[in-house]
Amino acid sequence: MQKIAVLTSGGDSPGMNAALYGIIKEAEQKNITVVGCLDGFIGIIKENFIELKEKELSKYINIGGTLLGSKRFPDFSKLDIQTKAHSILTQHGIEGLIVIGGDGSYHGALALANLHFPVIAIPGTIDNDIPLTDLTLGFHTAIENAVDAIDKISTSAYSHGHIFGVEVMGREAGDIAIWSGFATNADAIIAKKSDWDLFNVIQNIENSFEAGKRTQMYILAEGAISAEEFKRQVEKHSSFKVRTLMLGHIQRGGTPSVTDRILGIKFGQQSVRSLINGAQGKCLSVNNNTIEELDISQVLKADKGKPFIPYGLDY
Amino acid sequence: MQKIAVLTSGGDSPGMNAALYGIIKEAEQKNITVVGCLDGFIGIIKENFIELKEKELSKYINIGGTLLGSKRFPDFSKLDIQTKAHSILTQHGIEGLIVIGGDGSYHGALALANLHFPVIAIPGTIDNDIPLTDLTLGFHTAIENAVDAIDKISTSAYSHGHIFGVEVMGREAGDIAIWSGFATNADAIIAKKSDWDLFNVIQNIENSFEAGKRTQMYILAEGAISAEEFKRQVEKHSSFKVRTLMLGHIQRGGTPSVTDRILGIKFGQQSVRSLINGAQGKCLSVNNNTIEELDISQVLKADKGKPFIPYGLDY
Amino acid sequence: MQKIAVLTSGGDSPGMNAALYGIIKEAEQKNITVVGCLDGFIGIIKENFIELKEKELSKYINIGGTLLGSKRFPDFSKLDIQTKAHSILTQHGIEGLIVIGGDGSYHGALALANLHFPVIAIPGTIDNDIPLTDLTLGFHTAIENAVDAIDKISTSAYSHGHIFGVEVMGREAGDIAIWSGFATNADAIIAKKSDWDLFNVIQNIENSFEAGKRTQMYILAEGAISAEEFKRQVEKHSSFKVRTLMLGHIQRGGTPSVTDRILGIKFGQQSVRSLINGAQGKCLSVNNNTIEELDISQVLKADKGKPFIPYGLDY
Amino acid sequence: MQKIAVLTSGGDSPGMNAALYGIIKEAEQKNITVVGCLDGFIGIIKENFIELKEKELSKYINIGGTLLGSKRFPDFSKLDIQTKAHSILTQHGIEGLIVIGGDGSYHGALALANLHFPVIAIPGTIDNDIPLTDLTLGFHTAIENAVDAIDKISTSAYSHGHIFGVEVMGREAGDIAIWSGFATNADAIIAKKSDWDLFNVIQNIENSFEAGKRTQMYILAEGAISAEEFKRQVEKHSSFKVRTLMLGHIQRGGTPSVTDRILGIKFGQQSVRSLINGAQGKCLSVNNNTIEELDISQVLKADKGKPFIPYGLDY
Repeated sequence: MQKIAVLTSGGDSPGMNAALYGIIKEAEQKNITVVGCLDGFIGIIKENFIELKEKELSKYINIGGTLLGSKRFPDFSKLDIQTKAHSILTQHGIEGLIVIGGDGSYHGALALANLHFPVIAIPGTIDNDIPLTDLTLGFHTAIENAVDAIDKISTSAYSHGHIFGVEVMGREAGDIAIWSGFATNADAIIAKKSDWDLFNVIQNIENSFEAGKRTQMYILAEGAISAEEFKRQVEKHSSFKVRTLMLGHIQRGGTPSVTDRILGIKFGQQSVRSLINGAQGKCLSVNNNTIEELDISQVLKADKGKPFIPYGLDY
Repeated sequence: MQKIAVLTSGGDSPGMNAALYGIIKEAEQKNITVVGCLDGFIGIIKENFIELKEKELSKYINIGGTLLGSKRFPDFSKLDIQTKAHSILTQHGIEGLIVIGGDGSYHGALALANLHFPVIAIPGTIDNDIPLTDLTLGFHTAIENAVDAIDKISTSAYSHGHIFGVEVMGREAGDIAIWSGFATNADAIIAKKSDWDLFNVIQNIENSFEAGKRTQMYILAEGAISAEEFKRQVEKHSSFKVRTLMLGHIQRGGTPSVTDRILGIKFGQQSVRSLINGAQGKCLSVNNNTIEELDISQVLKADKGKPFIPYGLDY
Repeated sequence: MQKIAVLTSGGDSPGMNAALYGIIKEAEQKNITVVGCLDGFIGIIKENFIELKEKELSKYINIGGTLLGSKRFPDFSKLDIQTKAHSILTQHGIEGLIVIGGDGSYHGALALANLHFPVIAIPGTIDNDIPLTDLTLGFHTAIENAVDAIDKISTSAYSHGHIFGVEVMGREAGDIAIWSGFATNADAIIAKKSDWDLFNVIQNIENSFEAGKRTQMYILAEGAISAEEFKRQVEKHSSFKVRTLMLGHIQRGGTPSVTDRILGIKFGQQSVRSLINGAQGKCLSVNNNTIEELDISQVLKADKGKPFIPYGLDY
Repeated sequence: MQKIAVLTSGGDSPGMNAALYGIIKEAEQKNITVVGCLDGFIGIIKENFIELKEKELSKYINIGGTLLGSKRFPDFSKLDIQTKAHSILTQHGIEGLIVIGGDGSYHGALALANLHFPVIAIPGTIDNDIPLTDLTLGFHTAIENAVDAIDKISTSAYSHGHIFGVEVMGREAGDIAIWSGFATNADAIIAKKSDWDLFNVIQNIENSFEAGKRTQMYILAEGAISAEEFKRQVEKHSSFKVRTLMLGHIQRGGTPSVTDRILGIKFGQQSVRSLINGAQGKCLSVNNNTIEELDISQVLKADKGKPFIPYGLDY
């Protein structure tokens, strides 16, 4: 193997640059050239390739986002575009592709694998919504960011005796809500749609205030209920006033946590080794602190199931 | 003088606890007892007083929010309530009152002063919208918080080539927008209503993308245009897609900056000295690094005028 | 069970307050009263007990250090002191004791267990040097703190082209060095005594500078080599100038990370359940994301063995 | 004016990159080319020039250190080297030089000015030890860094009841000690040599412990007394045990504060305007929130005098 490519796709996540570094580091040791495709799969079609060097990459380990960029490219679901990508990669002498991203990116990676191009995927998303892995790259930083923001809101909520509904990311997965809500001792966590029970919430607020609690903090997973809807319903059916905040892109930015830096580098290194060993249509996962190789098709068919619950949390 | 009271009112701001500490520290040196009125002016009417001690307060210097709480109390605009507050304060042997808050709080303070009760006010608000002072307590922390959040969003915006409209606080004052926009090298700052020019913004975005810029960041003062409205208008009159974020209460929380800790302690100490020296209907301000005493009535009549522009900024 | 006690002992670690919160929360649900022994084992002998309440504790979850204090008390190795502690606990109606601390604290806990007093220990130390557990409480925050500091030093080191030797904590365990060195892409990590090879380091520096690298960062575990000794030896045997920094107590302070808050609360809750279930001379550990109960005696006899290596790191 | 040069010299300080950005931004508007001299004055002699572009520089505004590097070059005190620098600058068509650094750098800048080369200096040092300016670039970030570290140490100090001596930077100036000590409510600040009074410190510790204070924090300016010496003397003449920490390079690293970003950009912009206006042997300063031009020779002759005391602090 002499030349491989890497791309980042879907929503950016902290640690993607560390993963790029891990890839280059491992590849340079094996005398493999690495090119980055700019802005995701579209970079292949546009032949936007840049050569990556360890020396330059090393200073991006602690920088959030992705150096390679990531843009939407819905056309990549079409077979002719996929076939074109395959032939462009081959023309450029690229012998393998590493795709870093979420489940949309996994579909793109699988499509190329189905055309017999060697591909391996790294789970890169803050949402922790990829099945069969304890952690996705960026999740740890996202919960640190969320908790930092909730801590900040909390001093203000306490000062005024506010009721707060804070909406966090995570798409259909409630992992960010669960971790950040537990770590901030939230009054309740609405992690999935079935957790939402308006009557229960209003009762909870009433009981809390009666018990002398000054303030109330509800952590809402975006896939369960929006902050706006939470406010609308509680205010409509009670006399309580609700403040809201959507943490939004703050969660995905900033310096990657130690965990995401290390996980990124390790995922990156392993992905190169896997390609060398002939991995085809595979993706990496981490379970019980061990990095493993799975079939992308298996992961895409699997159910995300219960959120990853740290240390057997009660949720 | 043997006993004074202090209250925090209006939106909480980082550094209020440091101000409380400064008050207690100075008062204890002068053998003056300090009581805190819980939740603002309403604490007087409810006779919710707690005695404050330096030893306990000292560990709150680096904690945001206000230990004393702050709740809305629109009834304090009524003369009979004001008169009642006056007599309650007198009955409790309280000889002076320190009010920490924004312009609403200044009106309450002035009302008591007009009833001949010794009052001094400290400008405590993140908005920096009190006239005749360079800085209000909490503003410095708010801009650090805003910049930290905008930095986080920026790595993600860069990854995707997004256009972002970020709404910051500051009510009618654009100071938070100006400082945070300048420090993050924003593409434009809409600090006051007259800064808003839809055509200009769209032109600016077009020019930027043509010039090869990848991403666009617009900082919007809440008093100028909301993020939602910004998005609605830009998307309606162009083909650009806009992402938005309201920083909200994140700006007012968290550990006070060094500047706000020192400013808070100094304001607190000076307010006690001013009361001892017979200040009546006065408020503190800081200009050219010097703390001064002004008439509350003068400040309430003054125009906030131009934002406080650091180091002769061009805005 | 109606009344239990808790103490923190040894070096403080971030997350101890979260553990206290978890204990109180679980105990209040079971109608068990919790008292804290101030300053560790000495608090038993001095009968310095304070009753702990969930409501008060909840605001300390995100505060570092330990509310209960922790002071050295070497006399607790004496049997008569241990016997006295046992009878004091019994006199106060205390039916079980939770000890949060490192291996020194484990010895104290075991001594009481050997006198047939129900005891359970929680591994609370930043050093991650307790055998048979993947993580100790506080370790995660310590590495975040260390990495934050090394990041700060790095920009300065780069500016000047400095060679830095940074000494981190961890006693005989090199875990902090390994995690923080890997996450900051250090030039080398001296995690244990046998890693130290002066000639190799000097060679490495020479090679690096020859290859055009501008700066050099060496992470030194305190149990392997001190920063001072590192500097002394390198400067004696080469012409290089070395800068040093001991991160010291910065590592153990500050807001606990999300991981340590959750781990602390979970350890706390489980310790109460274990006592109720009759645990005697047990301690908690976390392995593969699961909290388990082990015998203290087994842990004290075990070898710490290899550092806990995240994701199969190569070190 | 068509081409100017810029260099950073002496210890790096956060905000230097923001100043570089301000320079480029202003220069590009005036169609002036800017080259950076690598590693300070030595970059001139080695003819190590790189052209700087606004687009690249803009992403370094929030990064600490200096992109241009800064290395010691004592030989620049020699007239023949200065003359050589002058002729190299002229040969390269460079018509003016901006020097960012501390007082050593000011001497270098003055030397070139004395040879009739247009030079302007920007006060860039964390120490705040340049006379006739309220603030130097980097000082604000340094005190935020110092306070963050002292806050972290404080929770641990409180847990154990430790006495801490924390050494901060600032060379002969005590400004970092004063601001960080005041903001953390230190038990005492030893800001200059004459503040040191061993007997007084020991008395202070005794009184504090008698009054029931749990812990003691002493902030020591490096120019007044080292942490090591503080410990040695207190421990020799009393029975107290002292812990120490040198904050070291942590103070100069990290993301620049809002103040330093804005101050840096403004200093940078103004320096270009000053060169265009014919400034010769000048330096910038900020007083009462206004940026001014002074003679370097005047500043070098002036006395630093009293530390810059925020808001009329009592120290």
